[in-house]
Amino acid sequence: MNNIAIHISYDGTDYHGFQRQQNGMTVQQRVEEAVSAVTGENITITGCSRTDAGVHAMDYVCNFKTNSRIPPEKFPFALNTVLPENIRCFKGVQVDSEFHARFSAQSKIYSYKIYNAPHANAVFSRYACHYPLQLDVQKMQTAAKDFIGKKDFSAFMATGGQQKTTVKEIYSLDVEKNGNLIEIKIHANSYLYNMVRIIAGTLMYVGCGKIDASDIKGIIESCDRKKAGITAQPQGLCLEKVFYKEDI
Amino acid sequence: MNNIAIHISYDGTDYHGFQRQQNGMTVQQRVEEAVSAVTGENITITGCSRTDAGVHAMDYVCNFKTNSRIPPEKFPFALNTVLPENIRCFKGVQVDSEFHARFSAQSKIYSYKIYNAPHANAVFSRYACHYPLQLDVQKMQTAAKDFIGKKDFSAFMATGGQQKTTVKEIYSLDVEKNGNLIEIKIHANSYLYNMVRIIAGTLMYVGCGKIDASDIKGIIESCDRKKAGITAQPQGLCLEKVFYKEDI
Repeated sequence: MNNIAIHISYDGTDYHGFQRQQNGMTVQQRVEEAVSAVTGENITITGCSRTDAGVHAMDYVCNFKTNSRIPPEKFPFALNTVLPENIRCFKGVQVDSEFHARFSAQSKIYSYKIYNAPHANAVFSRYACHYPLQLDVQKMQTAAKDFIGKKDFSAFMATGGQQKTTVKEIYSLDVEKNGNLIEIKIHANSYLYNMVRIIAGTLMYVGCGKIDASDIKGIIESCDRKKAGITAQPQGLCLEKVFYKEDI
Repeated sequence: MNNIAIHISYDGTDYHGFQRQQNGMTVQQRVEEAVSAVTGENITITGCSRTDAGVHAMDYVCNFKTNSRIPPEKFPFALNTVLPENIRCFKGVQVDSEFHARFSAQSKIYSYKIYNAPHANAVFSRYACHYPLQLDVQKMQTAAKDFIGKKDFSAFMATGGQQKTTVKEIYSLDVEKNGNLIEIKIHANSYLYNMVRIIAGTLMYVGCGKIDASDIKGIIESCDRKKAGITAQPQGLCLEKVFYKEDI
């Protein structure tokens, strides 16, 4: 059997997250239906991440085993004829039999977008969270620095996740402002449940003065979820890129 | 009566354009319903532009006459409670009685976004047109220069518009690339029907080699619509800003 990895983008607005579930349409179900339709097989796919309802992806990787003779690079053409418009496949490659979209991932980049203005904007509302209080981006940038490194991030973990360890390594955490749009970009080896959204919510609290930038170290060390900020809304979150040992 | 101008943003995907019509929901109808609901009057609004179905707006201006005692700056709060999510009001101001959102406009900036990659991207599909053939941005930038100035742009006009003159002045026309996203930004005193979409379609033809950059001058001078490129899809188009004699 061939192990095929595909790269997809999706608009998560109308999905109950990536992972297949009983009640509600998911990205995984739609992709499995599409891959099964084009291969004529009953395909189960493995995704790189369990994104929540409403979360988007620019470059999500999943893999599946198949006996299909479709050349890997032809999968985008075949799948895009059956996938809904809000899921698009843009690359297909053959990978080693051991490749696992989730367990083989070495790191991931997520972005979190905030539309920062007194009133919401209709063009940004699908892909950014609206925050009406003025945010001080410099304070957010100062606070962001203290997240970088290998640390126990349990203060930034929602209950319900299954994790072997709560120690994760954040390689970079950048905050940039462009007009009314603030973009947080985070690169880490892996993430705890809701970690990016809680970090984003905490940075928003720093930006509006509810948390002091100098308190971040203590919040991390406390390992106490209650000390961190809110869990920011899902629509601002987007999986940007997954890294593997070798580029696939 | 007070003359009130409001600034709104909208996602045009689900609308049959701005202007009220018999068959199909329009932005104008939704805004008129909302303003009528909050003022308790039967309000007709005047918009700054007749955007087509699927076209978006970041900062669209409209005005209306009212006897309402609602302070102008409170209109965003009041309107956003009754407007659908895909239309948001972010500013309200009192203007001179002669102010007319369309006739008082001195110039407008539109953007046109192209997602340029072999396969479409789900996150960009709502606000960008997908163009699969590789576009040479440098050639598009060279071609763009020849549009600038006061010229007869009838070669870039769809039939169906009502215009006193086909001579318009383009102040700037910029083409920029960021990743797979190409953004065309145009600033002109006013526009012929479908002018931005035909200019965008023509620049795409230049980018993929179907039209030579050096041919633009001749195409403009020909005043022949058939010599220009395609009318690019509506979803890439967005009204960015309207300018008046005084900032409102």
